[in-house]
Amino acid sequence: TFSRGIQTVTLIPGDGIGPEISTAVMKIFEAAKAPIQWEEKNVTAIKGPGGRWMIPPEAKESMDKHKIGLKGPLKTPIAAGHPSMNLLLRKTFDLYANVRPCVSIEGYKTPYTDVDLVTIRENTEGEYSGIEHVIVDGVVQSIKLITEDASRRIAEYAFEYARNNQRTSVTAVHKANIMRMSDGLFLRKCREVAENFKDVKFTEMYLDTVCLNMVQDPSQFDVLVMPNLYGDILSDLCAGLIGGLGVTPSGNIGANGVAIFESVHGTAPDIAGKDLANPTALLLSAVMMLRHMGLHGYAKKIETACFDTIRDKKVLTKDLGGNSKCSEFTADICRRVQDMD
Amino acid sequence: TFSRGIQTVTLIPGDGIGPEISTAVMKIFEAAKAPIQWEEKNVTAIKGPGGRWMIPPEAKESMDKHKIGLKGPLKTPIAAGHPSMNLLLRKTFDLYANVRPCVSIEGYKTPYTDVDLVTIRENTEGEYSGIEHVIVDGVVQSIKLITEDASRRIAEYAFEYARNNQRTSVTAVHKANIMRMSDGLFLRKCREVAENFKDVKFTEMYLDTVCLNMVQDPSQFDVLVMPNLYGDILSDLCAGLIGGLGVTPSGNIGANGVAIFESVHGTAPDIAGKDLANPTALLLSAVMMLRHMGLHGYAKKIETACFDTIRDKKVLTKDLGGNSKCSEFTADICRRVQDMD
Ligand SMILES: CC(C)[C@H](C(=O)O)[C@@H](O)C(=O)O
Ligand SMILES: CC(C)[C@H](C(=O)O)[C@@H](O)C(=O)O
Repeated sequence: TFSRGIQTVTLIPGDGIGPEISTAVMKIFEAAKAPIQWEEKNVTAIKGPGGRWMIPPEAKESMDKHKIGLKGPLKTPIAAGHPSMNLLLRKTFDLYANVRPCVSIEGYKTPYTDVDLVTIRENTEGEYSGIEHVIVDGVVQSIKLITEDASRRIAEYAFEYARNNQRTSVTAVHKANIMRMSDGLFLRKCREVAENFKDVKFTEMYLDTVCLNMVQDPSQFDVLVMPNLYGDILSDLCAGLIGGLGVTPSGNIGANGVAIFESVHGTAPDIAGKDLANPTALLLSAVMMLRHMGLHGYAKKIETACFDTIRDKKVLTKDLGGNSKCSEFTADICRRVQDMD
Repeated sequence: TFSRGIQTVTLIPGDGIGPEISTAVMKIFEAAKAPIQWEEKNVTAIKGPGGRWMIPPEAKESMDKHKIGLKGPLKTPIAAGHPSMNLLLRKTFDLYANVRPCVSIEGYKTPYTDVDLVTIRENTEGEYSGIEHVIVDGVVQSIKLITEDASRRIAEYAFEYARNNQRTSVTAVHKANIMRMSDGLFLRKCREVAENFKDVKFTEMYLDTVCLNMVQDPSQFDVLVMPNLYGDILSDLCAGLIGGLGVTPSGNIGANGVAIFESVHGTAPDIAGKDLANPTALLLSAVMMLRHMGLHGYAKKIETACFDTIRDKKVLTKDLGGNSKCSEFTADICRRVQDMD
């Protein structure tokens, strides 16, 4: 990888525990000698011309230039009309695919031991269109928007992801029995794209059935692709199966090669600055990022060290069932990474 | 209960395994001397004046007269424009509340042992409005309709249910951070109604967070109330936690005192007529019905017998892990019911 040189990644540490867990990730990357340098940027939204909330131009430029970002949790300021920071970022960079691998972590006890699946969520339209109206007093409508283009794009992403990540099946999750036209269109595009990926098995399933089967036997699922809201729900459900948002990585894939990897947990203001936070979700998101960049060796090394530390149970943060500080947990992973050389 | 006399219930045996499991329920009711007589009706839809699909007038009249129905699984004929039979029934009788108690069953092993909650789903509008349009080629919209009236009605039902069933809290499940107007209206009505039920604790939670918390620790939930689609999803998820649709009862409560209780599993055509079906879901739905009718003693007796048979593990149908026939399982419950006298 020396030949590829060092690549720059935009780092958005975020709010609350964000800076601490970002520091943890940087330390572990350094210990692993990962060929990454960080360009730190703040994305706190500003009011642009016309009064629209936007992320600061320097952050936007950094992302446009380096294409890859790593981001901690962000709090959304409570200002009138202020959009969710997550939604603003998705929009700004057309991050159309939200990808969440959920894999059972050895040694971290949950009711399930054999989860190994990936949810792929359409991230730009559907129930998140933001179009709503009052029809008459007391009657409100929200519009779910499904387009052929966005449906094809996410379906293609899902099948390519499956192919590139040695996964064998893609399940389209829908309610086309109820939303015949919108989910019907989504489903039709999935079917069409499936035709071009004969090496990947394609199935379709109702969202309610997926939820029921998921909690009964998650091992039956592999890659799941779905419209926005269904992905919001299923990705959290699946995160719950493996231990919650504190251990679940996430990636947002955009057009033109842009991608932002992020921990999806909150800013945890109650423990911020106290060296108590668990950096696992951000670290595993950074591992996803390395894989996305083709740096598989570094990804494997860091991931193994992290899972070894968790399996070992000696140095764990509080939420993982231990008594250690964030810095101690981080040091343990660093040591393991260095021992691998 | 002699003073109340015998009450008539409309029985819709349904398709596939429907007749067998209906027979099982009737036998158990007879053994328990439950003061119910059945009026069997077929609801296979017919084309009414103007070409609209409707349920046969005799079935409608029977329900209008007796108010209470018990229904097995129905298959939806594959005819152009034929609506789902479930949706048609909900519409015909304005069954606005779908109620599903999910309680862990002793002796039937799942990853969870302490589920004891009730999902209450708005059953008439929301994402099930059926209003969809093609905007331009490749762009489709589905309309989610939320009204003040339906939101207030379901919220009131949920709080009254909690109060009447010794439950202590109601959680409104929503995505008002995304669908600010529609889910916002729903949530506002829940808050307003909560003001009139100070004896019941009220909380609100995002749907994604509920899913995550649900699979991590379902015991934290009590009564959950939510718009249509969210209820479709959560009720199936929760059914999964206690063993699936084969053991989950369901009730549909309508305006003017009408209510239909039903098993929500499929018609299982592969095992239909072979005396292999599991009548538990329909039986527990019938138990819900008895409670709804104020016949608590009979309800308790039948429910206890059913749970005892399952806990005992000696006479179980195949899906419950045994080798017994539907008739044997039924006979075991009948024997227990009779022994209680
Ligand atoms: C914060 C919120 C806008 C967001 C969503 O609903 O998409 C979150 O739940 C997520 O999954 O990233
Ligand atoms: C059969 C179908 C129309 C129905 C629904 O989506 O509501 C089913 O899933 C249910 O929950 O009763």
